[in-house]
Amino acid sequence: MPSAHVPIVERILSANDRLAEQNRSLLDSAGVFALNIMASPGAGKTSTILETIRALSPNFKIGVVEGDTAPVTIDADKMVAAGVPAVQINTGGGCHLDAGMLGNAFSQLDLQNLDLLIVENVGNLVCPATFNLGVHSSIVVASVPEGDDKPYKYPKIYRGIDALILNKIDLLPYVPFNPDYFRQGIELLNPGVSFFRISCRTGEGIDDWAVWLRAQIQSRKG
Amino acid sequence: MPSAHVPIVERILSANDRLAEQNRSLLDSAGVFALNIMASPGAGKTSTILETIRALSPNFKIGVVEGDTAPVTIDADKMVAAGVPAVQINTGGGCHLDAGMLGNAFSQLDLQNLDLLIVENVGNLVCPATFNLGVHSSIVVASVPEGDDKPYKYPKIYRGIDALILNKIDLLPYVPFNPDYFRQGIELLNPGVSFFRISCRTGEGIDDWAVWLRAQIQSRKG
Repeated sequence: MPSAHVPIVERILSANDRLAEQNRSLLDSAGVFALNIMASPGAGKTSTILETIRALSPNFKIGVVEGDTAPVTIDADKMVAAGVPAVQINTGGGCHLDAGMLGNAFSQLDLQNLDLLIVENVGNLVCPATFNLGVHSSIVVASVPEGDDKPYKYPKIYRGIDALILNKIDLLPYVPFNPDYFRQGIELLNPGVSFFRISCRTGEGIDDWAVWLRAQIQSRKG
Repeated sequence: MPSAHVPIVERILSANDRLAEQNRSLLDSAGVFALNIMASPGAGKTSTILETIRALSPNFKIGVVEGDTAPVTIDADKMVAAGVPAVQINTGGGCHLDAGMLGNAFSQLDLQNLDLLIVENVGNLVCPATFNLGVHSSIVVASVPEGDDKPYKYPKIYRGIDALILNKIDLLPYVPFNPDYFRQGIELLNPGVSFFRISCRTGEGIDDWAVWLRAQIQSRKG
């Protein structure tokens, strides 16, 4: 069975890549910049998206796609309460989003009326790394209480991302976390990657992140 | 392709279940009680194991199997430093341990000379739930900064576990977390499950957890 397993996985990935290309074409022809946010459960993806909406919504039309393993709309409801359209994808227990799921979500969004589409992936530091969604940028939200060794233990997720957000920096006084060791791990995997230290709780650092994201959106539009 | 996918997954799981039965036989004939610890990355699996070793090692011979997605021995080194034999399983990017991987690790352990084998699964709230390892008990370590909504978002991992440890309770004053809402989510999925509130940082609650685990080990031996 192991010998049959690898080619099957490769075929699934190649089908996924074709669907990712379709997603990218649809996004580009609608003029939408799309961002994939990955993180472990509880790192603060949803809070980061809410802060991002707060920072950018006066100037940009934003939509959100929420990936969940179960049919709960906790996060999607928060997005709608924040005034943006949101579509929930229930993976039915699956550990990541794929390009087909995202493409299906497009049919429930008015892409022509968006500048920015934020995709919140399933909370998982392993599986989402493998599946290209066709978006323009992928980022990881890490968080201080997860510990400073995560880049060393889950290297695949950090390779090739466009930015790293370190959230919950307000907890630095209360937990053991060596910022230099963490940063070094990220740099080894992704030299020079954009790096933001934020706290969704206090608002610290959100402006710097918003400046970066605004520039990304505008450079694609220009 | 989707129509071919499900039967293949079923065949993998059935092969896994056979290997899990083999693991259980080996453990039982050696008189070893085995515990599978699941959690998201950074919830404190490793710290919980170290505290457990501290509490139980005067009376029990303990071994540890460390599941990692990468060839790093950060956690296994900590176990050896704590004075217990440890075997690292590198899943090669895989998102969970399976029974075959655990069975392979047995060959590097002197099972006859152990009372308790602790298996630290890959940090992931989705994939490890599906793969029976053949151990006697499975638990989840949750942590306060992950947030109180995780049982609602990742229900599969909490169903059928034998105990839930809520770690990092020392951070309750600093983060939004409703203990009643969290507990209610756990109870809905697993009514009456044993529940421990601990802080590996302050040592709070470790004794209660150790009492429970000691009873589990002894009841299997008896």
